[in-house]
Amino acid sequence: MEAVKIFCPATIANVSCGFDVLGLCLDSVGDEMVVRKSDTPGVRITKIDGADLPMETDKNVSGVAAVAMLEALKSNQGFEIEIYKKIKAGSGIGSSAASSAGAVFGINELLGKPFTPAELVQFAMQGEALASGTAHADNVAPALVGGCTLVRSYTPLDVVGIPVPSELYATVVHPQIEVKTADSRAVLKKNLTLSKAIQQWGNVGGFVSGMFLNDYELIARSLEDVIVEPVRSVLIPLFKDVKAAAASAGALGSGISGSGPSIFALSKGAETATKVAEAMTKVYHNSGIAIEVHVSKINPDGCKLL
Amino acid sequence: MEAVKIFCPATIANVSCGFDVLGLCLDSVGDEMVVRKSDTPGVRITKIDGADLPMETDKNVSGVAAVAMLEALKSNQGFEIEIYKKIKAGSGIGSSAASSAGAVFGINELLGKPFTPAELVQFAMQGEALASGTAHADNVAPALVGGCTLVRSYTPLDVVGIPVPSELYATVVHPQIEVKTADSRAVLKKNLTLSKAIQQWGNVGGFVSGMFLNDYELIARSLEDVIVEPVRSVLIPLFKDVKAAAASAGALGSGISGSGPSIFALSKGAETATKVAEAMTKVYHNSGIAIEVHVSKINPDGCKLL
Repeated sequence: MEAVKIFCPATIANVSCGFDVLGLCLDSVGDEMVVRKSDTPGVRITKIDGADLPMETDKNVSGVAAVAMLEALKSNQGFEIEIYKKIKAGSGIGSSAASSAGAVFGINELLGKPFTPAELVQFAMQGEALASGTAHADNVAPALVGGCTLVRSYTPLDVVGIPVPSELYATVVHPQIEVKTADSRAVLKKNLTLSKAIQQWGNVGGFVSGMFLNDYELIARSLEDVIVEPVRSVLIPLFKDVKAAAASAGALGSGISGSGPSIFALSKGAETATKVAEAMTKVYHNSGIAIEVHVSKINPDGCKLL
Repeated sequence: MEAVKIFCPATIANVSCGFDVLGLCLDSVGDEMVVRKSDTPGVRITKIDGADLPMETDKNVSGVAAVAMLEALKSNQGFEIEIYKKIKAGSGIGSSAASSAGAVFGINELLGKPFTPAELVQFAMQGEALASGTAHADNVAPALVGGCTLVRSYTPLDVVGIPVPSELYATVVHPQIEVKTADSRAVLKKNLTLSKAIQQWGNVGGFVSGMFLNDYELIARSLEDVIVEPVRSVLIPLFKDVKAAAASAGALGSGISGSGPSIFALSKGAETATKVAEAMTKVYHNSGIAIEVHVSKINPDGCKLL
């Protein structure tokens, strides 16, 4: 194999209760990427379509992730990367993660899979470090492993795949204002009370249990964020109204996708997820804010060959 | 039915990563209790064997729990309670919880089970409030529901049963110094850093996943407490040595049971759990500290009729 064409999925990080640890992989929205072997050593970004992003390898998240992987392999094989961006940068659904994940997934395929998807996370994280200043894994883990992932630990990296109930759908509404990941992290408080932390880890345990038990009601009760949402949501116009609209339309719960400004909702079944999308969309009518809406099944595969 | 004799199990609260939310039910150690209908309305403690505890209903945890339950039922039925204490008070394996849970379990049986085990937790918690000043549920939930329990939320109370891998055994070593629950809670810091909280809820998610997946290695990696153990363990003599001994003998992990001073370890299989018991016990040889040791399968039933 000399070249692969790849679907690089968008992802929902945090999933309300699981700040920095939980993530979900989407199916109906993602980038495409071509990764090609080259006779010249090194990694080159040869084309970027759909976004104004740096072509220099060391300034592009996919370049940084690819180089990290090749260094670990001590490989001199050269690669060229073409990126067809469909996920908007700064949307909060893992735009940079899709590029980081796609690059290492593609190279892994072309080199005969020296790494498992979970092992690729460590390299894709280096792209995230370039994008946001922090090597977080809660987008690249679901983008690579698929489904729902838990980053149990960062040191050492320990990614756990969580099963996904078959009727779980995500709705994502992206109000097109820019919130940079770095800014969105800056509003976070460095300290919290033990009582709020207990609420949060109770909900992480509840959410994970709900996923294993196919218990949509338990998932719904666990989709609560008492720590990050209260401070971050002020950056997102009409957040409370959108959340209320999602609940009225039958969503299991909703919250900020990653560092925002996208707002996600989870629903049981495609029909409800579509109703939820309509209800969430309606809130932005006449607001002057352009929005983009996605309804997606949770994608069990992560990055895949096209 | 006019009277029931009950086994009221000891329990391990917190389970390292899940402060105030996780609990495990033990099988080989617990109190016994007789609950009997009486023609005189009200709840009376008629006998306490094996411990010097108050006989007054409003000062005894089982009395308080029983009264809370009868008030909710608006019942005038009278009850007499005999308590045969085997779990030492202040040991950190749910001595007060066993009495609170046993009382409401017994009354529930005699009244034709108006409540599910999970519903009984709210009443047993009132006994815990008397014992420690806080109505925590992480001992009474496993004592009533059995197995492993997650208290997802306190307001409203939401108790989730987590499956237990069939070969999971607990070892508990009780160094017989007294650490009062109220004192042990007083050393806790009211605030923590977001980064430590993230580690903790990653581990809660990992532990719960490991239990569902029968993944003993994942359970082992998740048995980590970066918040409470560092401050509480200073109250327990030889804690670090006991922990190291448990690890060397093959335990999956170990930590403080509830508010201590008991130290628990989890192991795969009875044989390893017994070796772990020997290794943990050895640390206290010639220390001048008397110890009590228990090896127990995780009890799937909670309180049961004898």
